[in-house]
Amino acid sequence: MTLASPLQTKPLTDEELRKINAYWRAANYLSVGQIYLLDNPLLREPLKLEHVKPRLLGHWGTTPGLNFIYAHLNRVIKKYDLNTIYIAGPGHGGPGLVANTYLEGTYTKYYHNISQDAEGIQKLFKQFSFPGGIPSHVAPETPGSIHEGGELGYALVHAFGAAFDNPDLIVAAVVGDGEAETGALATSWHSNKFLNPVHDGAVLPILHLNGYKIANPTVLARISHEELESLFVGYGYKPYFVEGDDPADVHQQMAATLDIAIAQIQSIQREARVHGFTERPQWPMIVLRTPKGWTGPKEVDGKKTEGFWRSHQVPFGNISKQPEHLKLLEDWMKSYKPEELFDANGTLIPELAELAPKGHRRMGDNPHANGGLLLCDLKMPDFQKYAVDVLKPGQAIAEATQVAGKFLRDIMQLNQESRNFRILGPDETVSNRLGAVLEVTNRDWAAQILPEDDHLSPDGRVMEILSETNCQGWLEGYLLTGRHGFFSCYEAFIHIIDSMFNQHAKWLKTTRDIPWRKPIASLNYLLTSHVWRQDHNGFSHQDPGFIDHVVNKKAEIVRVYLPPDANTLLSVTDHCLRSRNYVNVIVAGKQPALQYLNMDAAIKHCTKGIGIWEWASNDQDGEPDVVMACAGDIPTLETLAAVDILRQHFPELKVRVVNVVDLMTLQPKSEHPHGLSEKDFDTIFTTDKHIIFAFHGYPWLIHRLTYRHTNHNQLHVRGYKEEGTTTTPFDMVVLNELDRFHLVMDVIDRVPKLGYRAAYVKQQLQDKLIEHKHYIERYGDDMPEIRDWKWPY
Amino acid sequence: MTLASPLQTKPLTDEELRKINAYWRAANYLSVGQIYLLDNPLLREPLKLEHVKPRLLGHWGTTPGLNFIYAHLNRVIKKYDLNTIYIAGPGHGGPGLVANTYLEGTYTKYYHNISQDAEGIQKLFKQFSFPGGIPSHVAPETPGSIHEGGELGYALVHAFGAAFDNPDLIVAAVVGDGEAETGALATSWHSNKFLNPVHDGAVLPILHLNGYKIANPTVLARISHEELESLFVGYGYKPYFVEGDDPADVHQQMAATLDIAIAQIQSIQREARVHGFTERPQWPMIVLRTPKGWTGPKEVDGKKTEGFWRSHQVPFGNISKQPEHLKLLEDWMKSYKPEELFDANGTLIPELAELAPKGHRRMGDNPHANGGLLLCDLKMPDFQKYAVDVLKPGQAIAEATQVAGKFLRDIMQLNQESRNFRILGPDETVSNRLGAVLEVTNRDWAAQILPEDDHLSPDGRVMEILSETNCQGWLEGYLLTGRHGFFSCYEAFIHIIDSMFNQHAKWLKTTRDIPWRKPIASLNYLLTSHVWRQDHNGFSHQDPGFIDHVVNKKAEIVRVYLPPDANTLLSVTDHCLRSRNYVNVIVAGKQPALQYLNMDAAIKHCTKGIGIWEWASNDQDGEPDVVMACAGDIPTLETLAAVDILRQHFPELKVRVVNVVDLMTLQPKSEHPHGLSEKDFDTIFTTDKHIIFAFHGYPWLIHRLTYRHTNHNQLHVRGYKEEGTTTTPFDMVVLNELDRFHLVMDVIDRVPKLGYRAAYVKQQLQDKLIEHKHYIERYGDDMPEIRDWKWPY
Repeated sequence: MTLASPLQTKPLTDEELRKINAYWRAANYLSVGQIYLLDNPLLREPLKLEHVKPRLLGHWGTTPGLNFIYAHLNRVIKKYDLNTIYIAGPGHGGPGLVANTYLEGTYTKYYHNISQDAEGIQKLFKQFSFPGGIPSHVAPETPGSIHEGGELGYALVHAFGAAFDNPDLIVAAVVGDGEAETGALATSWHSNKFLNPVHDGAVLPILHLNGYKIANPTVLARISHEELESLFVGYGYKPYFVEGDDPADVHQQMAATLDIAIAQIQSIQREARVHGFTERPQWPMIVLRTPKGWTGPKEVDGKKTEGFWRSHQVPFGNISKQPEHLKLLEDWMKSYKPEELFDANGTLIPELAELAPKGHRRMGDNPHANGGLLLCDLKMPDFQKYAVDVLKPGQAIAEATQVAGKFLRDIMQLNQESRNFRILGPDETVSNRLGAVLEVTNRDWAAQILPEDDHLSPDGRVMEILSETNCQGWLEGYLLTGRHGFFSCYEAFIHIIDSMFNQHAKWLKTTRDIPWRKPIASLNYLLTSHVWRQDHNGFSHQDPGFIDHVVNKKAEIVRVYLPPDANTLLSVTDHCLRSRNYVNVIVAGKQPALQYLNMDAAIKHCTKGIGIWEWASNDQDGEPDVVMACAGDIPTLETLAAVDILRQHFPELKVRVVNVVDLMTLQPKSEHPHGLSEKDFDTIFTTDKHIIFAFHGYPWLIHRLTYRHTNHNQLHVRGYKEEGTTTTPFDMVVLNELDRFHLVMDVIDRVPKLGYRAAYVKQQLQDKLIEHKHYIERYGDDMPEIRDWKWPY
Repeated sequence: MTLASPLQTKPLTDEELRKINAYWRAANYLSVGQIYLLDNPLLREPLKLEHVKPRLLGHWGTTPGLNFIYAHLNRVIKKYDLNTIYIAGPGHGGPGLVANTYLEGTYTKYYHNISQDAEGIQKLFKQFSFPGGIPSHVAPETPGSIHEGGELGYALVHAFGAAFDNPDLIVAAVVGDGEAETGALATSWHSNKFLNPVHDGAVLPILHLNGYKIANPTVLARISHEELESLFVGYGYKPYFVEGDDPADVHQQMAATLDIAIAQIQSIQREARVHGFTERPQWPMIVLRTPKGWTGPKEVDGKKTEGFWRSHQVPFGNISKQPEHLKLLEDWMKSYKPEELFDANGTLIPELAELAPKGHRRMGDNPHANGGLLLCDLKMPDFQKYAVDVLKPGQAIAEATQVAGKFLRDIMQLNQESRNFRILGPDETVSNRLGAVLEVTNRDWAAQILPEDDHLSPDGRVMEILSETNCQGWLEGYLLTGRHGFFSCYEAFIHIIDSMFNQHAKWLKTTRDIPWRKPIASLNYLLTSHVWRQDHNGFSHQDPGFIDHVVNKKAEIVRVYLPPDANTLLSVTDHCLRSRNYVNVIVAGKQPALQYLNMDAAIKHCTKGIGIWEWASNDQDGEPDVVMACAGDIPTLETLAAVDILRQHFPELKVRVVNVVDLMTLQPKSEHPHGLSEKDFDTIFTTDKHIIFAFHGYPWLIHRLTYRHTNHNQLHVRGYKEEGTTTTPFDMVVLNELDRFHLVMDVIDRVPKLGYRAAYVKQQLQDKLIEHKHYIERYGDDMPEIRDWKWPY
């Protein structure tokens, strides 16, 4: 152990050592019991086959380490009256967190049937990884958790998200050495460059170096001590090493190290809170190197197990066929001496029970880990104040996200004091035209600042790093602990966090059925710099498929909005920021674009989520001949321009224009709560007329949503079909046949009543496309008549 | 600069310095020209507005640094006769790589119209970021590139992928300090723990610390020198710092440092190749700290530009409205003194041209960067040798991936000498039951090895790290340089590389239209440990949506296979490993499961991709009453069990069983080359009978693929609908209503001819489901009659 200060190296008295070790034994006992036992929970009769679960599911390897850390955190929480939550990166070690929250009493608080006696322990054991019971990982069902830990890599970034703006909180983040190999975890160490000790809490990373993954050693366990130390110094931490396999020795080391770490954290905070932020401190972190499956069987069937990857999951099974395994299990569990830990009733004996903190200081009952308890509504200005004047549709020009930026600026301003709102983006807030927020706050930056720097401050509330995983993880941690946020991202690269979104959506879905979990603020994405306007970047930056990914998740969780202009974007943004327990995806452009709806119309349109645009339609006196539908800003523009062409050439054609803001309205009502009824869908789209649908994303998504509707067979969708490069804005839509000319040709090809002129017009349009191609290849820009088109009616 | 050896610190003579600087000036000149100019390429007449592009698109900031590195790499390639490729992490700096490959002559070799004279330069300038021209990033169109660089974070992992098994190759990997913040990049530094100097090449990372991203400083530029140095020492490198803004000084530093780095690489390799691998060496890496937009305008409109984020893209535009900007551009370009660099003809003068390497030593013409040129077929054993005996369908039990593992083992064995095949997985090769490969090779591990370690060796060809991004990136780099690979992954977590897959698929799509790019081996995924068998892990590990993501990409690139058993998996695996330029996704289970097809039948079935299983059907004498379709191993099992129930209760019902291996057969032929013709689809699925489709993934994917087919309205799909937890295998299908009982009820609800017994049978099935629920909650395992069901006919 590297000791930085002259604190005592054996801070525990013999009595304290004996007790903390006994507490740890109790947690280990309960962990093994969960994995293995159906009955005979306290081994008060000889262990028989029928006491053992028929299917053994769970992960032992990481669990004793998680239990060890929990016991020691309990000690310092009591000693220093700390406000602490525990993030279990190796969340597979579910039995450990369940055991500890049971020992401290919170499990019984939330699940009355799991009482603090032998019967409760039996139920605790049986329910684990058992049908109708609880999952094998740390999960939403586990009190004190904000982190599932099934998908590895996010422990540290969640911890920082939780610590921001929670000055009194210390987040203990246990990082597994397996997950430390993931990309997300590797970059999340740099989160310390964004943490301000004045008004943020602290994160105490504990790298649990148990050496092995499923079948391999871990990288960090097999580099030299010097490299490991350098790595964490390089990441900006002061690493302390706690290493060994003799419990008594490691207990003393861990206690001494935690005393130092807490002292350092408190000293850093005191200094910063008295004198203000001066420079980024070197925060402590702990490397805990102990055996995998510590205290488990040393060998199974003659093969090394403790301290090796073989103890990763269930160290041995096959109990029905190998009776010696039954004996091994009994001996193992009895090695914890349960008779010394639990009284006749099966209740943890008082001298151990009192080692746990009380009330909300218990890590399982800390309200920060049930963020909905602490959630306050955002103070919101009236979004209508930011309305763009739209006297006539399709005339005025505005940049939608730039308008939304002013709204976000004032939300930021109104909630500065409550410090419960942050805006995140991978270096793109200004690029995405949300720069107005920098009028009232800065970019968060706790690393070096130079005089020429622009809006950088350790007090900033705009968080930018070129890491989508950090942005996503920080935001998740922030929301899960009861705050609000807004994440803007280039549309194509949000796929980098596809898997993180999955896990958050799954968390939200599960919490809906857990009564004691209170609703949290929705996770709000603004996807901009989208597929149709990647002028600088081209093909690699073109992918509108995140919404396809999102709609695979439970309908009750996901919402997708495609506001066509600034006022609709304002209305949608307001709605999303007020919502709870959803993932809201908003897709909107940042470039100067035509505006269609004044604020009243925008609110009405967004409230319905879909509607006929009467002002653009000419079917007022009956059924239309064709429905021109659109979703997304550029498809809306091209649809209206197509309608203009249709009107010029076929004035007698009755065209209905339908715009979709809320994509989920297209699904049947049975599939999504926002879905239109069959009748409403038929009223809007007719039951038998052709529908030409211009869509922002991949066209088949619209088919997928609508295939059950009556008129689906007449639906023809244009969208992005993976054609693109660095070219002009209009050429992008032409390459994907989403442009006005193709849309008109789609009508011509389908609607029979257009008569003899149809072929002639089609030829004209094809000529126009050739003219366009020649023009851009000569001049490098779109033809003015296309670029400057406005709605002429 | 930290110098490790007494090499001279000013290795360049004045003459050499003058020349290398002139070469750099030429590259910078050509880079600026590409961004700005339409005409007047050598500024031989005064610059006028009409010479400037109307739309200015591109990224200047990183470009001078990329050019600087290129010039210095040219020098050491010539000096030491190196075999080197260049990976431009900041691939936005496309103009730099285009300029350099033009200067060295490779650009003209591949694009004859871009000649080495003034006319060629004019075309070079015009085509950049121009409609009908080339993209703004380093792209497949750029000679010498294997790396698009539009999506940041993969430079280093691609470099290592390229270096594995290429002992003579030095991969210079320029890492941008922006991309260094991404998760993928942050963990890819650890790739050095997998590189063996005996038989792998070297990677020389060059961190280009130009300090800024789009609008922010970079994290690594704003930590102390000590932390930065510690970080790279911690990652296992020996960092050298080259820092400054005075070109003459930085040229000398860079030359000296490259001399040292090359000497160290060669010394490490010599030592290892003579004495064998003993311990992981400390490879050199370079930190190059130079101004962003170096040599560009110092200020624009009074605002700091050189050495600041304002030079990230186009440092100034608006040339038509601000005439002083035209002057600024002319002065800037003339500062490079083009008249000294290009002769009257517009050709680079000989004394500079000779600084570039010749032939394949040119980084733009290195065959490793056009891997198809070097690609050799894998030696493949006859996959039929590994066949599982299937005397009767649905009787034998086998673990499909375990069988495939033996096939992979022998492929590995046959190609050991050619060293052109690797197997990758995030710590899951054995867990995914491919462990047989370890009979002939080991896991690659160049970090510390302990005596108890299991199949770890620096010579291993199985690559495991708990980082899907590293696995994906290594494999991409390996394939792009002309080798073969196979990536097995837990199905749910392959989403972590969704975005990387996107970029690779886009690369493949683009290369199909580039005649000089030769086809490379396909990227093969085996997704196993799939949604239906997550007994240990539960909900967080359940997501079959990667195939939804994949099918959004171009049909000519993607293939998706769902082999129902071991023999079909063998046939599909054989096919995928022989294919070129695709992304193949295979989804198959690893658990013991029923086997259906003997090898002959499996080959026939896989060749067609879809087929009626006559042996399971009883409609031989005419049209069926219902079609029971299935795709995926578990859905196939449940479908057959449902058919069994149907036969017992409704022996007169004519049931057709259809199994789909190749998912793309379901699309119309117009949408995918594997798609069935409308006639064939109708023959299989009928035009009017109900189809009950049991699908492995999200059910709407089947609708999305089939919505254009005649009988789509009668199609009813069951699949995963985000219901799951840690429970029994059969309970998982019940939770998602994909089980045999629900499938039978789906038939009962739809097929009218079942008569009076239907309601009675349905009640029986509902009772069965309740009985199942009670059984598993009591015993924790599935009822034997379900667990042990076999096809009884």
